[in-house]
Amino acid sequence: MKKSSIISVGTEIMKGKIDDTNSTYISRWLDKLGILVKWRLSVSDDINDIVESLNAVKESDIIILTGGLGPTDDDCTREGIAKFLGKELVFNEDAWMIISNFFKRRNYEIPLSNKKQAMIIPGGEFIKNDSGTAPGIFYKENNKIYVLLPGPPNENQKMINESLFDRFKDNGLIEGEIISKVIRVYNVGESELADKLSQIKTKCQLGYYFSQNGWVELHISYYSINKEEAIQNVNKTFNDMEQILLNNNYFYTFDKDLGTILFELLKEKKLTISFAESITGGNISGEFVKNPGASEVLLGGIVAYSNEIKTKLLNVSQDTLNKFGAVSEECAKEMVIGLKDKFNSDISVSITGIAGPTGASKEKPLGLVYFGFIIDGKTFIKKEIFFGKRERIIKRSINYAFIDVYKNIIKKDY
Amino acid sequence: MKKSSIISVGTEIMKGKIDDTNSTYISRWLDKLGILVKWRLSVSDDINDIVESLNAVKESDIIILTGGLGPTDDDCTREGIAKFLGKELVFNEDAWMIISNFFKRRNYEIPLSNKKQAMIIPGGEFIKNDSGTAPGIFYKENNKIYVLLPGPPNENQKMINESLFDRFKDNGLIEGEIISKVIRVYNVGESELADKLSQIKTKCQLGYYFSQNGWVELHISYYSINKEEAIQNVNKTFNDMEQILLNNNYFYTFDKDLGTILFELLKEKKLTISFAESITGGNISGEFVKNPGASEVLLGGIVAYSNEIKTKLLNVSQDTLNKFGAVSEECAKEMVIGLKDKFNSDISVSITGIAGPTGASKEKPLGLVYFGFIIDGKTFIKKEIFFGKRERIIKRSINYAFIDVYKNIIKKDY
Repeated sequence: MKKSSIISVGTEIMKGKIDDTNSTYISRWLDKLGILVKWRLSVSDDINDIVESLNAVKESDIIILTGGLGPTDDDCTREGIAKFLGKELVFNEDAWMIISNFFKRRNYEIPLSNKKQAMIIPGGEFIKNDSGTAPGIFYKENNKIYVLLPGPPNENQKMINESLFDRFKDNGLIEGEIISKVIRVYNVGESELADKLSQIKTKCQLGYYFSQNGWVELHISYYSINKEEAIQNVNKTFNDMEQILLNNNYFYTFDKDLGTILFELLKEKKLTISFAESITGGNISGEFVKNPGASEVLLGGIVAYSNEIKTKLLNVSQDTLNKFGAVSEECAKEMVIGLKDKFNSDISVSITGIAGPTGASKEKPLGLVYFGFIIDGKTFIKKEIFFGKRERIIKRSINYAFIDVYKNIIKKDY
Repeated sequence: MKKSSIISVGTEIMKGKIDDTNSTYISRWLDKLGILVKWRLSVSDDINDIVESLNAVKESDIIILTGGLGPTDDDCTREGIAKFLGKELVFNEDAWMIISNFFKRRNYEIPLSNKKQAMIIPGGEFIKNDSGTAPGIFYKENNKIYVLLPGPPNENQKMINESLFDRFKDNGLIEGEIISKVIRVYNVGESELADKLSQIKTKCQLGYYFSQNGWVELHISYYSINKEEAIQNVNKTFNDMEQILLNNNYFYTFDKDLGTILFELLKEKKLTISFAESITGGNISGEFVKNPGASEVLLGGIVAYSNEIKTKLLNVSQDTLNKFGAVSEECAKEMVIGLKDKFNSDISVSITGIAGPTGASKEKPLGLVYFGFIIDGKTFIKKEIFFGKRERIIKRSINYAFIDVYKNIIKKDY
C-alpha cells in the first residue's frame, strides 16, 4: 500500500480560525483509493516550518500540500518546497497567460502581485484551477510525488476530483481499491454495539465512530486489487451484521442523512408531509427542505412557538393548555389534529417539548418531548426524554420524528 | 513565547470520517493565551505512529494529545506516550472508582473494558471528565508538559475550559495574554476589505478570514504582558476601523451569530417576530429558535412551501400565483400581509425564492429571492439574487432577512 502525507499550510489554521476541512476531504479521497494516510500535519505560512514539515514526512510516497499559494507576501508554500528540494522556482509564461485571462474574463485589472502564482518548480506540471487564480503543481522526483493545491476548499476539491485521479493512475499510485459500507446505528453506544457485533467472523476491517448527531457509524471495509473479492467480503460481513442489528431491534440506515432517506422514501411512495413544530421551531421542516425537490413531498408547516398561535392556528383548546400545559400528550394530539385539518397531508407530525435551559419542572424535566403523528388515518402520540443541552435536544427530536415516520411508512418494526 | 504542538489521534480522522475540530478549538485557545502553536499533527490509533509523532514535536514546551483514550482495543494513546517516555502505565484505584461511579449513576453495568481508562503515567495527574468515562492526564517531565484529552469534542472542550487554564498558569506557561476583537463584515470580499482598511496605522496584528457563511472575519489582536496596554491598542484600532466601515456603508457585527444578535435586540426592545417561509422552509425560524429564551420574541411562523398552502394559510390570491408566480414581489407582499393577519407580531417577514437545482428560468434565475417585511406598520419588499448552490442560497437568504430586520429596528443606515 502506498503511503501518503498531507501538509496543510496556513496561519489561520494554526490560530484555529478555520477548520482544516481540506485535509479531511483529501484523507477521504486517498482512503477510497487504497492509499494509506500516514501523517497529517499543519504548519504556519512560514518557509522554515514548511521545510521542517516536509522533512518529517519524507518517507511518504505521496506528499500533498494545501494552502499558501495565494498572491500575497505571506503565501510561501511554493518557496518552501523549492527550498526543501534545493531548487529555484522559475517563471512560466503560459501559466501567467492563464492567470491574466482569469482577470480579463471578469474585467478586472491584473494585479502584478499575482505574478508569483506563475512560478513553478523546474520539471513540475501545473494543475489547472478553473475557480481561482492559483494553479496547483504536480512534481515527481525519485519516485516521490509532490502535489501543491490552493487552500480555498471549492478550488481545492474541484482540482482533486478533476485532475488528480488520472495523474495518480498514470503514475502507478492506484493499485487496488477500498470497498466500504457505512451504516449508522441509532440510539446505541459505541461499546454496546461493538460488543453485540463481536461474534461476527470477518476478514474486513471494522470501525466504530460515535457521531455527535446521535448515531454510531459502523464502517466495514476491505482493500484489494481484486474489486470483486472486496465487494463480496464487505457484503458478506454486512449481511451477518444486519441480522444481528435486526435481532436486537436497532434502527439503522446507510450513510445518508435521515431527512434525505425519509424524503426519498416519501417521494417514491408519493406521500406528502407537514409539520406542526413547537420545540424544534422550524428545524424539522428546515432539515427536510435541504433536499433538492423537497416541494414534491413537503407541503409546509406551522411553527407554533407561542401558546396563542397553538390555539389560533392549530385549534389547541385553551382548556388543554390550562389543564395539561403546552408540553403534554393532549397538546401534541390537538396540534397534529389541527395540522391535519389545515394541510391535509398524507403524514402529519406535531412536536412539543422543553429544550431548556428554563421551563423544566419536576414533573416535566428538561428534554421531555411529545410527538403527535397522523399516518394512514391513525393518530398516535409518543413521548421521549432526551438528555443534553438545547441544541442536542432539538437535534435528537428531529431524528426521532424522522425515524418514527420512516418506520411507520415501511411498516417494518426495527 | 512558549511553543506548543497538538497531536490528534484517531483512525477516523486519518480516513477523513470526521473533521479534526478539537485541534481547531485547542489552537484558538492556545493562541488566545499567547502560546505559539508550532505543529499540528494527526495520526492513526497506532502505538508506533503515536511514538513517531511525539518524536517529531519533541522540541515543543507543551504537547497536547487528543483522542484514543476510549475503552476499546484500538485506543492506545496512553500506551503510545508511555512507550515514548519509556515508562510503564500503572492502575489507579481512585480513577477506577470515579469511572465506576459514572456507570452507577446511570444504572448501567460497569464494563470491565473501561478498566484501562484508569491507567496513568507514573507521576501524572488525572484531569477529571464530568461528561464521559475517560479521564485526561497531565504530566510534566524535564520542563515539558504533556496533556492527554479524550476525543469527543464536548468532553474535550469542557475539560480544557475547566481544568487546563489553572494548571497552565500554575506551571508558568501563561505569561501575557492576547486581547482580540473579532468583527464580521458582510457582503464584501477579503481583499476589498483589506484594501479599504490598509490606510490604518496600528500596532495590532490584523487577520482577514473569509467565512463560507457569507462574511469576512476581521481579527484585531495584540499580545502583551500588560493587559491594559493590549486592550487600549485593540480598542484604538477598532475605533479607527469602525469609522471606515461606517463610511463605506459596510454592514458589520461582532463575533456572534446574526440570529442571536437580532434576537437580543428584539428582546431588549420587547418586539415580537414571525416568519412566512417558502424557499427557506422553516430554517429562518429554526435559526432563531437556537437562542435560549426564543419564545419571548418568536411567536412562530408558517412554512408555506406549496402554492396551495400559500393560498390557504396566507391568503395569497390564486390570481397572483397565476399572473406573477410564487417567486414574485407580489407573492412576497401577499405572504407577509397574510402572516401579519394571522400572527399580528410586531415584525413580520416573508420569503420566497428559487433555491434550485430546478425551477429557474431566464426571467427568474437561480438564487432569485423576494423578501416581504412589515415593520412598524410599514410594508416593503426587497429583491436579491444569491449565487451558489441550494444550501448556500438558503443560508444567504437567512442572513439577508436578519440583517434587514436588524437595520430597520435600529433605524441606523449602515
